[in-house]
Amino acid sequence: MKIAAFGEIMMRLTPPEYLMLEQTKELRLDFTGTGVNILSNLAHFGCQTSLITNLPDNRIGEAAKASIRQLGIQDHWIGTTGDHIGSYFAEMGFGPRPTQVTYQNRRNSSFGMSDGSNYDFDTILDEIDFVHICGISLSLTEQTRDAAFVLAKKAHTKGKKVCFDFNFRPSLNEAHGVAFMKEQYEKMLPYCDYVFGSARDLTDLLGMSIDESLGLSSQFEDLVHRFMLKYQIKNFAGTIRQSDQDKHYLTGFLFDSEHYVKSAPREIINLDRIGAGDGYASGILLGIIENWTLIETVDFATANGVLAHTIQGDVPLTTRKQVRHLMEQPTVDLIR
Amino acid sequence: MKIAAFGEIMMRLTPPEYLMLEQTKELRLDFTGTGVNILSNLAHFGCQTSLITNLPDNRIGEAAKASIRQLGIQDHWIGTTGDHIGSYFAEMGFGPRPTQVTYQNRRNSSFGMSDGSNYDFDTILDEIDFVHICGISLSLTEQTRDAAFVLAKKAHTKGKKVCFDFNFRPSLNEAHGVAFMKEQYEKMLPYCDYVFGSARDLTDLLGMSIDESLGLSSQFEDLVHRFMLKYQIKNFAGTIRQSDQDKHYLTGFLFDSEHYVKSAPREIINLDRIGAGDGYASGILLGIIENWTLIETVDFATANGVLAHTIQGDVPLTTRKQVRHLMEQPTVDLIR
Amino acid sequence: MKIAAFGEIMMRLTPPEYLMLEQTKELRLDFTGTGVNILSNLAHFGCQTSLITNLPDNRIGEAAKASIRQLGIQDHWIGTTGDHIGSYFAEMGFGPRPTQVTYQNRRNSSFGMSDGSNYDFDTILDEIDFVHICGISLSLTEQTRDAAFVLAKKAHTKGKKVCFDFNFRPSLNEAHGVAFMKEQYEKMLPYCDYVFGSARDLTDLLGMSIDESLGLSSQFEDLVHRFMLKYQIKNFAGTIRQSDQDKHYLTGFLFDSEHYVKSAPREIINLDRIGAGDGYASGILLGIIENWTLIETVDFATANGVLAHTIQGDVPLTTRKQVRHLMEQPTVDLIR
Amino acid sequence: MKIAAFGEIMMRLTPPEYLMLEQTKELRLDFTGTGVNILSNLAHFGCQTSLITNLPDNRIGEAAKASIRQLGIQDHWIGTTGDHIGSYFAEMGFGPRPTQVTYQNRRNSSFGMSDGSNYDFDTILDEIDFVHICGISLSLTEQTRDAAFVLAKKAHTKGKKVCFDFNFRPSLNEAHGVAFMKEQYEKMLPYCDYVFGSARDLTDLLGMSIDESLGLSSQFEDLVHRFMLKYQIKNFAGTIRQSDQDKHYLTGFLFDSEHYVKSAPREIINLDRIGAGDGYASGILLGIIENWTLIETVDFATANGVLAHTIQGDVPLTTRKQVRHLMEQPTVDLIR
Amino acid sequence: MKIAAFGEIMMRLTPPEYLMLEQTKELRLDFTGTGVNILSNLAHFGCQTSLITNLPDNRIGEAAKASIRQLGIQDHWIGTTGDHIGSYFAEMGFGPRPTQVTYQNRRNSSFGMSDGSNYDFDTILDEIDFVHICGISLSLTEQTRDAAFVLAKKAHTKGKKVCFDFNFRPSLNEAHGVAFMKEQYEKMLPYCDYVFGSARDLTDLLGMSIDESLGLSSQFEDLVHRFMLKYQIKNFAGTIRQSDQDKHYLTGFLFDSEHYVKSAPREIINLDRIGAGDGYASGILLGIIENWTLIETVDFATANGVLAHTIQGDVPLTTRKQVRHLMEQPTVDLIR
Amino acid sequence: MKIAAFGEIMMRLTPPEYLMLEQTKELRLDFTGTGVNILSNLAHFGCQTSLITNLPDNRIGEAAKASIRQLGIQDHWIGTTGDHIGSYFAEMGFGPRPTQVTYQNRRNSSFGMSDGSNYDFDTILDEIDFVHICGISLSLTEQTRDAAFVLAKKAHTKGKKVCFDFNFRPSLNEAHGVAFMKEQYEKMLPYCDYVFGSARDLTDLLGMSIDESLGLSSQFEDLVHRFMLKYQIKNFAGTIRQSDQDKHYLTGFLFDSEHYVKSAPREIINLDRIGAGDGYASGILLGIIENWTLIETVDFATANGVLAHTIQGDVPLTTRKQVRHLMEQPTVDLIR
Repeated sequence: MKIAAFGEIMMRLTPPEYLMLEQTKELRLDFTGTGVNILSNLAHFGCQTSLITNLPDNRIGEAAKASIRQLGIQDHWIGTTGDHIGSYFAEMGFGPRPTQVTYQNRRNSSFGMSDGSNYDFDTILDEIDFVHICGISLSLTEQTRDAAFVLAKKAHTKGKKVCFDFNFRPSLNEAHGVAFMKEQYEKMLPYCDYVFGSARDLTDLLGMSIDESLGLSSQFEDLVHRFMLKYQIKNFAGTIRQSDQDKHYLTGFLFDSEHYVKSAPREIINLDRIGAGDGYASGILLGIIENWTLIETVDFATANGVLAHTIQGDVPLTTRKQVRHLMEQPTVDLIR
Repeated sequence: MKIAAFGEIMMRLTPPEYLMLEQTKELRLDFTGTGVNILSNLAHFGCQTSLITNLPDNRIGEAAKASIRQLGIQDHWIGTTGDHIGSYFAEMGFGPRPTQVTYQNRRNSSFGMSDGSNYDFDTILDEIDFVHICGISLSLTEQTRDAAFVLAKKAHTKGKKVCFDFNFRPSLNEAHGVAFMKEQYEKMLPYCDYVFGSARDLTDLLGMSIDESLGLSSQFEDLVHRFMLKYQIKNFAGTIRQSDQDKHYLTGFLFDSEHYVKSAPREIINLDRIGAGDGYASGILLGIIENWTLIETVDFATANGVLAHTIQGDVPLTTRKQVRHLMEQPTVDLIR
Repeated sequence: MKIAAFGEIMMRLTPPEYLMLEQTKELRLDFTGTGVNILSNLAHFGCQTSLITNLPDNRIGEAAKASIRQLGIQDHWIGTTGDHIGSYFAEMGFGPRPTQVTYQNRRNSSFGMSDGSNYDFDTILDEIDFVHICGISLSLTEQTRDAAFVLAKKAHTKGKKVCFDFNFRPSLNEAHGVAFMKEQYEKMLPYCDYVFGSARDLTDLLGMSIDESLGLSSQFEDLVHRFMLKYQIKNFAGTIRQSDQDKHYLTGFLFDSEHYVKSAPREIINLDRIGAGDGYASGILLGIIENWTLIETVDFATANGVLAHTIQGDVPLTTRKQVRHLMEQPTVDLIR
Repeated sequence: MKIAAFGEIMMRLTPPEYLMLEQTKELRLDFTGTGVNILSNLAHFGCQTSLITNLPDNRIGEAAKASIRQLGIQDHWIGTTGDHIGSYFAEMGFGPRPTQVTYQNRRNSSFGMSDGSNYDFDTILDEIDFVHICGISLSLTEQTRDAAFVLAKKAHTKGKKVCFDFNFRPSLNEAHGVAFMKEQYEKMLPYCDYVFGSARDLTDLLGMSIDESLGLSSQFEDLVHRFMLKYQIKNFAGTIRQSDQDKHYLTGFLFDSEHYVKSAPREIINLDRIGAGDGYASGILLGIIENWTLIETVDFATANGVLAHTIQGDVPLTTRKQVRHLMEQPTVDLIR
Repeated sequence: MKIAAFGEIMMRLTPPEYLMLEQTKELRLDFTGTGVNILSNLAHFGCQTSLITNLPDNRIGEAAKASIRQLGIQDHWIGTTGDHIGSYFAEMGFGPRPTQVTYQNRRNSSFGMSDGSNYDFDTILDEIDFVHICGISLSLTEQTRDAAFVLAKKAHTKGKKVCFDFNFRPSLNEAHGVAFMKEQYEKMLPYCDYVFGSARDLTDLLGMSIDESLGLSSQFEDLVHRFMLKYQIKNFAGTIRQSDQDKHYLTGFLFDSEHYVKSAPREIINLDRIGAGDGYASGILLGIIENWTLIETVDFATANGVLAHTIQGDVPLTTRKQVRHLMEQPTVDLIR
Repeated sequence: MKIAAFGEIMMRLTPPEYLMLEQTKELRLDFTGTGVNILSNLAHFGCQTSLITNLPDNRIGEAAKASIRQLGIQDHWIGTTGDHIGSYFAEMGFGPRPTQVTYQNRRNSSFGMSDGSNYDFDTILDEIDFVHICGISLSLTEQTRDAAFVLAKKAHTKGKKVCFDFNFRPSLNEAHGVAFMKEQYEKMLPYCDYVFGSARDLTDLLGMSIDESLGLSSQFEDLVHRFMLKYQIKNFAGTIRQSDQDKHYLTGFLFDSEHYVKSAPREIINLDRIGAGDGYASGILLGIIENWTLIETVDFATANGVLAHTIQGDVPLTTRKQVRHLMEQPTVDLIR
């Protein structure tokens, strides 16, 4: 099974030891992005993965590619154009102080300025089975929207599996209103087989209604199943975060056309919150690729998501062995 | 509103990553002190601030001034004399291991050896509205006591507001007894408008008695109001620290001549305990400067004090936006 | 009282800030080992200590010796032979992610390839009162087994006190079965005065049976006293780790020929789990050396073990003052 | 004498210890720019300086301002707009390997997108005596050109001194041709009093001709004096770099309307080549501001330029004392 | 052209900033080896490369593979066996202080304990055109000798090009004498097409004689041509290092069956001496692969070798663009 | 041969990578001092060494002792008193930028406030053969002068060898004039056997005259021999530093009562200038202790001094093997 993802490579610049930007001149440089995170995790699970994106043809573009390879992702479909990589600063929070992310210009990046004509999607699709598209592409620029639609349509036409992540962030869409964004998502969804999202994505963005005649516990299930039916989605997955005093819990859910399962809630202990959701997604994708049962899949994915919160940086670097170990021996704190 | 503070700049030398001194050759250098902490925080709140102190006229003195400016504090009233800056080592604790502070010679520092004649207080006071004096000056040396008294008296005479922080540490006063120190504080208090302290400062240092005929809940209020009346203090503020198993809580209190308010207790999660009290004080001063209500002031100050525990180093670098965010959305752990 | 220990010096290589090996090119180098840990802690308690081992005669061997001296241990009985030091990588865990130790070749190290003829035990024993032998020597190689037996027998014969730590790790003994290892331990025990171990060492390794006719609370005591009687052991000590939700507790126990005491459980907060057991052992040894009561000894040792979990690296660097401080003022989080 | 500069603040990201980007995840963050460099150096010489620029209103903008203050520059004329700071990566060269600078998007920065209407130049100019404008502004964007012209014209009209640095880089002007750029420079020069540049700027950019009838030694002098006469320039200054085998030398030159002086060549030993030219410029400006003789000025400036090559980062942080020391005791290698 | 190399991956541990081992606890971890160095450089030149070796199946083995990929080398022929990677410490020299390399156990490494049966050479060879074998394999262990012979013979038989590097180090061969090693090299050479070595390898190791009847300048040429004829070698290449006072120079030479060319000497400025020879070899291989003329090849290779001395770590990371730049503009010290 | 030294332990705080103090918050901490430097070097040569000094009884004092042991020096004669260690900042120079040392308060240090009564010199002297006293003690404080005199006199009386280093720094003696200092040195010299100094020490400090009737080459020899005769000095040694363009050379000289030898000049390449003189002194002392010839001694010492310039920090950590290697194979730049 060969898996590709279409998405942006960003630079992440992180001060050490919970320092804030004005406290330090030392930064840690990582290359990240939803596609990077998911592919690297799948590569650590043993899958063959490849990233579809564009980078500048200069020293920092080369460094980004080297980093992508290091993460276990093939780089031969990474094109070069433009002269810029989007970046963000992550000031790591501690206790009641939240982690603060500050973005630098993403729209003028090599990725942001590339439309469908900048990629040889036909060749790429002939070599893969499965493609992941991050919803950020629908928000970023005219060009990334175009490229995402071209890719999704071609993939769907060629009978490749398409996985799509809503990843809807209002802050990236202040210029266009929700109505405009709804249109874009509705254009994308018919090409998709597997979707990550939340109830709010279905109600607030797509404008679907909740059937309040149902019992509370059935409303969510009914909502998602109507959505899946409408767009012929095979699986829909996501997470629910809950807090109880100062403890936080992660619960995963997963639908197929007929069933709905949830994992047991797992406590989250936070080393680095960013990208942890991509750990959950990687776990779900592994189960889908390998045809696990829904409950096996969601349990593995939730455990993986919890581990992703304990790893520095966005990229979940867990192996199957580590996830299984947490599922089987959750109290062991030292492995020799 | 222009605010100045009179106090020592110290070098803080901190091993990285919770290491102890014998475990590392790497130290982080910061410049700190009660005045530095409070002024930097007020500068981050938008106030214009300036430090009154002395530094050596050499490379380390210049580096200290550069750091002070970086923190948002003006440096043009920092004089040069002597050849030494007081310093301390902070071995950061973890869990049951307490943070260990080891002081190096403070008394022979440029600040410690400067008396009233080393400062042009008249010129300085003409340009400001408000001056903060830290009680450490009363303990440090003959010269700093002299300078503090001259400054407080002149400020009071010119109608400037004087804020004073008891900050009484027995360990700095082993040579002189409590009786001597009581005399010094009693000499200072008549010049003061706003005072930070604790019940223990009033009883153990000033020797005031508690009226045990009152209910427990009224004893503290009665004690403080008698103190405020005696010295014509406008506001008296401080904090109470409480522990419940392994959880720790901070509660702020604030008096004016007639009222007494307390914040709700807030849980403390500790990244760096040192200087956190100055975060509380900065919050109180902001409310006083901007004429907030007592309860608005004490709530803001307590939230700020809690954030100060989550920031590396002594200096609370919070902005109004960060404090408001914690007050309004305390469970958000990631801001994009 | 002069104390020596016989054991391996290993290199420990640790990525900074909870990073995993593939995330960093920076490693922290420490020299460690059970003997190193215990002797350094005893040196910090004021004892005169010396390590008996072998190192390569090259730059890394010299660096190891310098580090040993820095820890307060004398290095004049460290011989040179071979060209290799065993090493391990410690990827520090966080929350549910366990610490992962990866060993590199230990058997071909200078220590691993040294047998009894590589040491001048007679001279060494004439200068000391007490020798500690780590059970790892029985597992490592033919040569280390030989050296350990020669040393223990000579020490016993000369009337020196011998302390032995089971430290049995099945992972180091996959080649030889348990039966072989049982033989080795049974050969060692008659030379020993003080032993560290667990109930499982006595049952699973030595094959001793539990008297199920006794009440649960008496079974352990009976088991240990039978073991001590058989081998004429003066004291037997160890710890019990318990978890309650996400909290972890350490309880110490200590036997003499007639009595059995346990400390109150103390909560563990984990900065670095590795080597923390050696902190407990050092506390017990100090009590034994200085003839404290059983309960004084076990309380001190347990507090010391808890502190050892809060110190980076394997080596517990606590002083008596720090341990006493935790015992007397457990909630103080800042010492000036 | 109050001095302001108009120009961009950039982020410089530098790998440590001569590493290349693909070799490290650690970067050092500095804030830099021609204006920053010159003002900071003048501030270290005792001048009062202030930067005129725009930064984003976010965490990285705040960190940039803190850094500017730390360098000794006032920040109250730094406005906020946009969401981006231009950046560059500096892979430090060694011996025959040249330093490699890779720029990231500068045109979409807060500075790049600000035109004359984004600044309150009238207020600013009323408070200063002298303004420095970097020629990069003419190349960067339509908006920065506009802002530079508005500022220069207003300053000239108000009788303030205007200093201008050609700083012409063909790589920044590939879109517009030389003819377009010539027009921009010709529009700027009539407002200028002091100009930094080279012979090549006058011939290749402005299209001036060399009078080949003159002896070689007079051609340069004649060229510059014709240029100065045409635009009524008071002083023109620059440097000549020469190499002899593997040694490199810096010679400064300085013209007034009648005279032409050169410093003796000084050997350059290179720690960090970037920004060293700004050290020379700062020295010239100091001499101009303080009315030194031409030869005093050029000697000081050249010594300062040489020191600037020995300082990490773009910003020349030299003091007068350091420059004088090099001029008077060039062989001393240790000062206690 | 697909190129593979057979050889060891070693860990290199380097103290920062020219510190010696006993001066620091911080080490930089790199993965290196002759094959790694040459393949990474060829990958930076645009070739497709793959390493043939064995690593342990654990966390450090995984980290090594990630690093190899990061360097641009494919990792799918890296097998897993054993539990150890050879390592060395590099204490970087400065001026008259030489760089000191201290090896740790190489013979018990996963690579050192793998013989021909541990590799699927037939499959591998079917996919490549060119294989590089490092002479270290002949010295290391019985097993590596076996594997090297099997590989060379199979490659030769299948008509693949074989490149061999003498890399003879007496220090690795103290157990076996020169006679034994001569036999091994003589067994290898008949399979080889391209060889790297020195005159000394031919005389002292292979025992060839110099024809002293020839003029001095012809002796070397005659010696090499006799060697090449005997073993049917297509090209023989190497370098000559010369010193003149405190300056050092590198000259490359290259033979084909009829010609002999030398590059002009280039001055070496040393940042990191280790692995620089592999930079020269990579340049020669590039010329051979792309059928450049002898002189084009040797000039490029020598320039590349000189750059390799200016790069931290063993691995020459130069691109064609960088090498060309040095050849064409050797005095430029800053590229923007 | 057991050697002790009497002198101050200072903290040295050094910014990394040639940064200046205002450029960094990271400092490297070392413990240093003339006695430390010489004893550590002698310990690396195989001698048994011990330092006589006082440190504060706190965490930083303990860290200092640990560092001293790490350097190979015994710490059992280090007493505890006072609360301060003298410190200095070393901003490392580069090329024409000199290294800048900034001292912090040394006079109030534990060492500076200890007089003869703070040491048990009788016990100490009974266990050693040789004591080194640094001339700084005569400049520092009343108390250190007292202690130095008591020690020197007792040592001389007991027939122990006394080595004294002029180490006269006018900057430390601005309060007392030269006349006062001359008196102190004259009081010390009669107790001394071996003296380090320069011609200037004899003329400018002691006021000795040069016999200008002699040829230039004999004046220095005559001066020193008169000095040696007057005070019955067995050996007098020192260095001459010369520069030729940008190259620097070190020449050592050594006298006995009848002879005078000089080493060949050796080129100095400077990594860290501070403490390099102590490397020369250590070499001389080793030759004296082991009764080498004058020329053997001075050659070894000069080579060692040159190496000391290439080592980070004050402390020369060279071994005999390294010095011999430089003497025998000066052009080798890589040792495997």
